[in-house]
Parts: sequence; structure tokens; C-alpha cells
Amino acid sequence: MQCLVALISDFGTTDPYAGQMEAAVLAQAPDAQVVSITHGIPPQDIALGAVVVAATLEHLPAGAILVAVVDPGVGGRRRGLIVRAASRWLVGPDNGLLMGAAAVEGIWHLDRSDYWRADPHPTFHGRDVFAPVAGHLARYMRPDAMASPIDDAIPAPETMAKTLDGMVGGRIVHVDHFGNLITNIPSAAVRAIAHGIVELGGVRIDGVQPTYGSGSDPVAVVSSLGLLEIAVPGGSAAANLAAKRGDPVRLRPA
Amino acid sequence: MQCLVALISDFGTTDPYAGQMEAAVLAQAPDAQVVSITHGIPPQDIALGAVVVAATLEHLPAGAILVAVVDPGVGGRRRGLIVRAASRWLVGPDNGLLMGAAAVEGIWHLDRSDYWRADPHPTFHGRDVFAPVAGHLARYMRPDAMASPIDDAIPAPETMAKTLDGMVGGRIVHVDHFGNLITNIPSAAVRAIAHGIVELGGVRIDGVQPTYGSGSDPVAVVSSLGLLEIAVPGGSAAANLAAKRGDPVRLRPA
Amino acid sequence: MQCLVALISDFGTTDPYAGQMEAAVLAQAPDAQVVSITHGIPPQDIALGAVVVAATLEHLPAGAILVAVVDPGVGGRRRGLIVRAASRWLVGPDNGLLMGAAAVEGIWHLDRSDYWRADPHPTFHGRDVFAPVAGHLARYMRPDAMASPIDDAIPAPETMAKTLDGMVGGRIVHVDHFGNLITNIPSAAVRAIAHGIVELGGVRIDGVQPTYGSGSDPVAVVSSLGLLEIAVPGGSAAANLAAKRGDPVRLRPA
Repeated sequence: MQCLVALISDFGTTDPYAGQMEAAVLAQAPDAQVVSITHGIPPQDIALGAVVVAATLEHLPAGAILVAVVDPGVGGRRRGLIVRAASRWLVGPDNGLLMGAAAVEGIWHLDRSDYWRADPHPTFHGRDVFAPVAGHLARYMRPDAMASPIDDAIPAPETMAKTLDGMVGGRIVHVDHFGNLITNIPSAAVRAIAHGIVELGGVRIDGVQPTYGSGSDPVAVVSSLGLLEIAVPGGSAAANLAAKRGDPVRLRPA
Repeated sequence: MQCLVALISDFGTTDPYAGQMEAAVLAQAPDAQVVSITHGIPPQDIALGAVVVAATLEHLPAGAILVAVVDPGVGGRRRGLIVRAASRWLVGPDNGLLMGAAAVEGIWHLDRSDYWRADPHPTFHGRDVFAPVAGHLARYMRPDAMASPIDDAIPAPETMAKTLDGMVGGRIVHVDHFGNLITNIPSAAVRAIAHGIVELGGVRIDGVQPTYGSGSDPVAVVSSLGLLEIAVPGGSAAANLAAKRGDPVRLRPA
Repeated sequence: MQCLVALISDFGTTDPYAGQMEAAVLAQAPDAQVVSITHGIPPQDIALGAVVVAATLEHLPAGAILVAVVDPGVGGRRRGLIVRAASRWLVGPDNGLLMGAAAVEGIWHLDRSDYWRADPHPTFHGRDVFAPVAGHLARYMRPDAMASPIDDAIPAPETMAKTLDGMVGGRIVHVDHFGNLITNIPSAAVRAIAHGIVELGGVRIDGVQPTYGSGSDPVAVVSSLGLLEIAVPGGSAAANLAAKRGDPVRLRPA
């Protein structure tokens, strides 16, 4: 049985960093299936990384391993972690990136360097620490062999918009490749408002639709990341609405 | 025997969409070999996507599966398809994207949702419908188990330039990573003209050469996509000739 | 035992070139593990490609195969090579790209076209020559079956800065995804100067640190590529210091 090892990072793909990390997993676990989910998390954006990590986890098969690296503190005093959540494994830095995952079942601190690359490079623990540990997990090594249980991991950044007096004041946290505007308003908040009005700058969108082709333009939907999304069917909402990351978005009852 | 599953989409790689689709194939078919051919088709460009799908198919081994997703109609009434062509399988939306393939041997409509992810997300059938179906095909499930034969699939967009009075009036359909200008003039039209003159704006190129280093600058060649291409050896034709997508290109006898 | 085949090129990822090359490896070697290290080498930059090839090799397991393609002379008279170095294999063009590798143990000229794709496309030897050869190597075919030993391969470009009178005059050869400035000053030159001062334009950095979070801003470190690197922790050195590729960098004793 081949184990799935998924990778998420802010490394981009123009440098050899992501590929070297992938090769380092395979050096330990030649039979693993390695999938790069994305290396396009904006540099050092732990908050967005935590959202993508949490949203991706449920799409991996049980037993899969997700290595996530957005790691501005690399080489310093921040710890490395194994986290067990929802019957999957997470490996990465102790800076909140992994802790947005639902159903955390256990947390371990990576404190045995004999399972890392010898003499790990101090600016590249993704390749020299987290990838080898993921490779060992993929070969069914138990976390206790490589790490010690802890209960004081740094929590995920608080990024989700809160509902107050029946309204949700959120913001755009990501503009995707299509120009869709991803907000920090979670699907639960959308479901809680029977008929919602979405406001972005001077734009008012009447109702959250099930999918893009619902007649409205622009259209509000729940994105596949589980967040309220504003899209322009067949075009770019970012360009058409002159909207950008950070812009406020409001959801309120009609 | 491991089955090859290739992916083509307009998802880009900065978001987790392409990676989640890849993981969804492997969740169904843990032994498959998954290859991302490209996720760089321009957003919603079905015509260019169809050209890349058709040009890629012959480079996959027999029995391989190609999942292609350029899908502006996702979540609406458009159908999903399995297509058998040239002893390979195609999976994707019924919008013409798959139908540029030569030697179509059969077409099926994906009408059995029990082979999809339960409750597929209405904006992401790539991950929740097409990837699981490809995974089942990779495990040698027959298309009839998942889909019903049809014969009315939407044809590929008519994008190739036509020869008229011995001349071909085409246009640039893609500027590649190197700045090479890819036209919609097919290699058959190039071969039909013994000594061709290529005209782009005020630039006149005498003859189509076998390869880049043929002394001419700029040089016209047949690209690896099977289309007339204009290149500047060691440089960018797009920058040097101030050319862009959509510009007219003419091929005529000397 | 699955063989690792790693890929490095200047193909980018917006076109199908990199993916078709990967599929061509798997067509020959269905059991291989194929990893794209990066396809983001700047177009035709053999010198930077050679640095990345050499720096990546030691991170691949023994027996692995690295296909590297930065190939402005494709389709012309330049030869194709297999190189054995440090118990790994390299495959690619004879233009210096492969020859930065340490510990070269043997060089072969690819002169048997029966191991290539039939009728290889003259602008795409990556897919039609180098990938199939790598696939055969991955299935443990000996190089002598596909190629003839030579000893006159073109050497790697001389890119490393030289130490002169105890000082090193180098330059920025790459700005990475994070905006880190990678120089051509090798780690050996850094180690040879007990307390080094790094100068870039009007900026003076006192000492080369083990890692980013060392208090200095900007900070000089040895990058994971084995080269002196200038970074701004949590930000972009390229943006903050208005520095770019080609800018001179000096390392001297305090």
C-alpha cells in the first residue's frame, strides 16, 4: 500500500526548493506518492497557509501525510511538529500553520535529530527536517520514535470573520488565479443567514448562490475552500470590481 | 502495471486546486502515476485547451487517462464526459475541450453520481467528479459502469487557420514561456507549401526551418505542438517583434 | 525498487513542455518516481542551471537520475550526454549544464537513436531524446547500450567568484521567490574569512550568520544552494535594498 504525502508551502516553483523537498521525502520513502498541493502560499503568510492546510486535509485519504512549510522562524527556536488530526498526519513548524486542522488527536515535538538529514541546513528545514520525518511516517514509523508528545502548540491565527448582531464583517484574504475573491467569511456563517446580502465597496450582491452560472454577475458562492467567494462568471472579479486583498466584505440579512 | 493519469487545466499553481485534483485521483487509485502536463491554460480558454489536449494525447502511452478541466460551465447543465480516443481515455466537461482529439472511438456521459465524491462541490467538479472517475478508470473500471454512451458531444472550437487560394491567414494563439509565438497554422498547411513565406506585421521570414539554429533570425519552425511557430533564437520573439496573442500571421508561397 | 528521476529545466510550467517530458519518462519507465525539481531556470541561462544541477545532485539518493534541459542549441550539432557523477546519473545537452557536478565518473555521448522517440521533434529533445534515455536508465539499462564514452564534454561555465588578496568580488546571480539575493560567492570562500563584511551597493552587513533570525537586518547567510545569500527576514531583500540580478557584491575581512 502506497502512502500519500502531500506538500503545501510558500516556496514558489521558480526555485529548486519545492522539488528538493519532494525528493527528500522520496529518499526516505521510495514507494510514497508525493503530491504538491500548492507552493503558492504568499511568502510567510501563516494565516492563509493555515486555512489552505485545514481545507485540504479532508480531501486527503485517511492515513495521508501533509507536510506544510510556511516558516519565517526557520533555524531559530521555533519547534517542529507532528500533528495527528482526523486520522491524517501533519508535519511542519510550530507557528500555528498546522493547528487550523479540525479534530486534532495528538501533537508531538520533533526532538530527535537522528531522523533528520545529518547537519540540516539552518534555512531549509522543509527539506532537511520535515521531509525526512514525513518519509519515516510514510513508512509507518510511529511518531513516538521521532518526537515527544506536547500540548502547548501555538494555535492557528484567528482569521475567520465573526458574526455580530446577525451580520458578518469580513475581508478578502486571497485573490485566486481566476481573479475570484476569497473572503474570511466561513460557510457556517453563510448558512446561518437564510437570504444574505453581500457588500463589497459599492457593490451589493443579492443572495449567495450554489454555483457560478446562477444568473447574477457578480455572483457570491461558497468556495471549495469553505469560504464566501465573490466571482464574475467568465471573467476576473478582482479586475472587474477593482478589488484586492484586504478589502472589507460584509454579509447581512436582506 | 501502473496506469498513467495526466492532468491539464486552467487552475494555475498558486492555489490548491490542481493539487487537490491530483490527490483526488490518488485517493481512488493509489497505484496510479499522476502527471501534471500543465495547469497554465489561460483561464476559460477552451480553444487553446483543446489544442493542447489533442497535441498531448499522442505523447501518452496507450491506456493512459487524460483529465482536462477548462470548465466555465461547472455546476450548471453542461455534461461530464469520458471519451475514448486513439486507445487513450479522456475525462472532462462536455464543452469541446476533449473533442479536438483524433480518432475518437467512443463517448460516454457521466450520469452515475455514485462514482463521484459524495456531495460534489458545485464549483469544483475537477476534484469531485472528474478526478474520481479518472481514478476508477485507472483501476480498470469500464466506462459503462459509470456513464452512458452518447453521440452528441459538443465539438471542439474551430480554431485552425484555413488554406485559401494557396495562402493561409492565421493568428498568434499563444505566446509561450520563451516568448515563442505559436500560431493556429497547422503543420499540414506548412508541409503543403514547398517554400513558404511567413509574414507577421512588417516582418517577413523566408522559409520554414527544421529547427531554431538555422541561421535565420527570427526563424519560423513547426512547434512541438504541431503548429507554425515564430521564434528568435536565444531571445524572446514576443519582445523582439513586439508581437502578442491575436496578431495576424500569413503563410504564402514564395 | 523504484528509481528516482528528477527534472530541471527552463521550460516554465505554463506550457505543456515540462509535463510532456515527465510523461515521456514514465512511458519508458512506468515504475519510476518522477520529481520536478524546478522548471524555473531563466530561459537559456546555462550558468545558473549548472549551479542548480550541481547543488541538487547531492540531495538525490544514490542511483537517481537527473534530467536537465537548458538547451538553446537543440536540434543543432550539440551532442546529448549521459554523465555519471557521485553515484548518480545526469542526462542532458553537452553545453556545460551537467558539468558543474562534483566527482564526475564517466561521460557518454548519446549516439544511438533507437533509444529515442522515433522521429524526435527537432525543437524538443527534452521530451523525445533525454526523457526516453532517462527512462531506459531508470530500468537499469547500461549507458554503453545507448551511448559512447567521450572525454571532451564542454565544461560548465565559470561562474563562481574568485578570492583575490583575501577579498571576493562577486555578484547577484539569482533573486529567489522570497526576494533573497543569491550571489556567486561559494560557501568555501565564506568559510575562509573568519569574520566577513558583505557589501552590496551602499549596504554593509557585518558577519555571515548561520540563519535568518540572527538579529541583523539585512542578514547574510549561506543559502541552501551553497552560495552567499543576502536576505531581509520576513521581507524581500530585492525590494527593500532595490537590488537586482547582476549587482556587484563584495566579501572582505573585517
